[in-house]
Amino acid sequence: MDHLEMLRGLSVENNTKIVLLVLDGLGGLPSPDGMTELESASTPNLDLLASRSETGLLEMVDTGITPGSGPGHLGLFGYDPRKYLIGRGILEAIGVGAEVLPGDVCARGNFCTWGDGDIIIDRRAGRIETVESSRIVDRLRETITGIEGVKVRLYAGIEHRFAVVFSGDGLDDRVSDADPQAEGKPMVWSRPLAPSGDKTARVINSFVKTVRECLADEKKANGCLLRGFSGTPAIPLFPDLYKMRSAAIATYPMYKGLARIVGMEVVEAGRTIEGLFNTLRSSWEHYDYFFVHVKYTDSRGEDGDFDAKRDVIERVDGFVPEVLLLKPDVLVVTGDHSTPSVLGAHSWHPSPFLLASPHVRPDGAPAFGERVCARGSMGIMHAYKLMGLMLAHAGRLAKYGA
Amino acid sequence: MDHLEMLRGLSVENNTKIVLLVLDGLGGLPSPDGMTELESASTPNLDLLASRSETGLLEMVDTGITPGSGPGHLGLFGYDPRKYLIGRGILEAIGVGAEVLPGDVCARGNFCTWGDGDIIIDRRAGRIETVESSRIVDRLRETITGIEGVKVRLYAGIEHRFAVVFSGDGLDDRVSDADPQAEGKPMVWSRPLAPSGDKTARVINSFVKTVRECLADEKKANGCLLRGFSGTPAIPLFPDLYKMRSAAIATYPMYKGLARIVGMEVVEAGRTIEGLFNTLRSSWEHYDYFFVHVKYTDSRGEDGDFDAKRDVIERVDGFVPEVLLLKPDVLVVTGDHSTPSVLGAHSWHPSPFLLASPHVRPDGAPAFGERVCARGSMGIMHAYKLMGLMLAHAGRLAKYGA
Repeated sequence: MDHLEMLRGLSVENNTKIVLLVLDGLGGLPSPDGMTELESASTPNLDLLASRSETGLLEMVDTGITPGSGPGHLGLFGYDPRKYLIGRGILEAIGVGAEVLPGDVCARGNFCTWGDGDIIIDRRAGRIETVESSRIVDRLRETITGIEGVKVRLYAGIEHRFAVVFSGDGLDDRVSDADPQAEGKPMVWSRPLAPSGDKTARVINSFVKTVRECLADEKKANGCLLRGFSGTPAIPLFPDLYKMRSAAIATYPMYKGLARIVGMEVVEAGRTIEGLFNTLRSSWEHYDYFFVHVKYTDSRGEDGDFDAKRDVIERVDGFVPEVLLLKPDVLVVTGDHSTPSVLGAHSWHPSPFLLASPHVRPDGAPAFGERVCARGSMGIMHAYKLMGLMLAHAGRLAKYGA
Repeated sequence: MDHLEMLRGLSVENNTKIVLLVLDGLGGLPSPDGMTELESASTPNLDLLASRSETGLLEMVDTGITPGSGPGHLGLFGYDPRKYLIGRGILEAIGVGAEVLPGDVCARGNFCTWGDGDIIIDRRAGRIETVESSRIVDRLRETITGIEGVKVRLYAGIEHRFAVVFSGDGLDDRVSDADPQAEGKPMVWSRPLAPSGDKTARVINSFVKTVRECLADEKKANGCLLRGFSGTPAIPLFPDLYKMRSAAIATYPMYKGLARIVGMEVVEAGRTIEGLFNTLRSSWEHYDYFFVHVKYTDSRGEDGDFDAKRDVIERVDGFVPEVLLLKPDVLVVTGDHSTPSVLGAHSWHPSPFLLASPHVRPDGAPAFGERVCARGSMGIMHAYKLMGLMLAHAGRLAKYGA
């Protein structure tokens, strides 16, 4: 029997509360002094919690595979990311609040700087500010509403980013990116990857050309690139699978979008870490399952800033007592992938996790860290199996078979 | 290649002896003093054995999934319980010694107390004694032999339980339970779950009505409920798969039934723990594989009686030297699932196991317990993989590939 089908068949409703606290890119690698960001962070609250928890490492996708944000979170939500794929375009679009219907094709956009002869000088247009990006999107909305009968909707994102949703008959997301992927190179146009992608590639390229003409007078953002074309995925949804009222408490569009795709409700939480935990407390009575997403561990890891990533971990540790005061029946703390500062990028290393509940066999872990969790009682576990474990500890799964 | 097909293709005969000693519901959770039933039990023999064994934890079905007795044992016998399902009705029927042929439909029965207007007052008829149940089954056998040309066979069980086997043309086990599942509620009748279940549902409901009429003068057991309708499963059998003469030594009908379903022979062993080990010794020359099942660890765990469960474990420990005197080539000690006394029910926690054989890399485990096994060299292993490991240690698997 399929894993999700089993969970769907066994899940029952009750009044327990589950918290999944994700520190994006939590896992790291040792600095020259031999300790990872998490190991060197002063985390008295997480350490105490780990000592009373079951611990282990989560393999997000498969051994040696570095996950993007989509697959990493899908795993945490119970979906085997080798089986369920969600395109980056739709993630971005839903993340900024776009309504996407089956048949639509979404894309991530960058405003960029074009030079002579279609050379892309800067793929991010000097990382223009968010207000600039909004202004330019407004300009484009006045000019571009449809192409070949296809409706075009534009959404401003953070800094140089935006999202597009194409709606109309005969669209197909099997088309290549309209993006040279490198700077100083000529523009690369979208091509169909299946015969039924002809129209979509044509509409995309027409859109990019129109944007180029429309923004010719802009200094930095005088063009755009589109990539990650994708439509709505065929995926079973949280309320149906797990019978929980589920809340996503996140600051970044991407993670809100992902949560909406799997059927969670998004509760607005502002942009700060403190805001996340305030929102958790204020929405406590209204939901059963809380996905709390801290972005900044990943951001600082991607910056290659070991100390700053460690500091974010320490700040989150300070909010752990507030979470415990809410008395969740199950609390998991983990990451969606590793982002070691020494690599400055996502990595394949499994994510340390702890699961706290009244029904664990505590490992007595001396601290919360990668090497301690590697010796934890849960071993290395596929991330998509975490959801079943959380539901079990919350008393939300009936017995399998007689 | 399918796991069982691989074992079937590689298994060879020899004269080694394998013992699988199952303490039903062995795994537990810590009491307030921090130790589980197994960890707090005085088990000098199992502890010494563990130090010379490979140890680990068995995941019976899947992470977070609480197994019923059927799936738990199927796993121990080498069948992935996510793939092979056995209905409760046939388990119960074969357990009490019924012969079941393909096309038959079996059910678990409860004698119950009916009130006015078909209200089910007590689903277990006050847990009448086994002799009472036998007397009532004898009464019914005189009255009911067939319905619509379908032959009806009745078998008394323990306390209020009995089993029925329906034999005849056109039966289908895809019918719902004839059981309100709760007390103080009106009777709920069987319904077909597939069009071909029409006749079966009709026969079942007719049977229940006839029983109600027949037992109208009984004080407690004046009616019955039927549930868990199921026929013979399509499952490859022990002699074919593993080429061993296999014996089941168990006290309870359910486990004898399960052993028969997979193709073992059942050796009668009475009702005591001592009887199990006497039977193991007396049947030693006649079989290659011995499944020895101790029920009482689970029973005491389900009673929520921590001390009594610990006492059963200590009693079994006392028989371990007798097993070792027989010089089995492979001895595994484990459970079919966990039954923590603090939960008073089956649970999802993996089962500690030890495997003793001359060809292990001993872990040097300091004792036999959940947390020690969690650090064992076998890690967390799917239970259905245990059979291959046992066969290998017994020299009963040929090399895979040239």
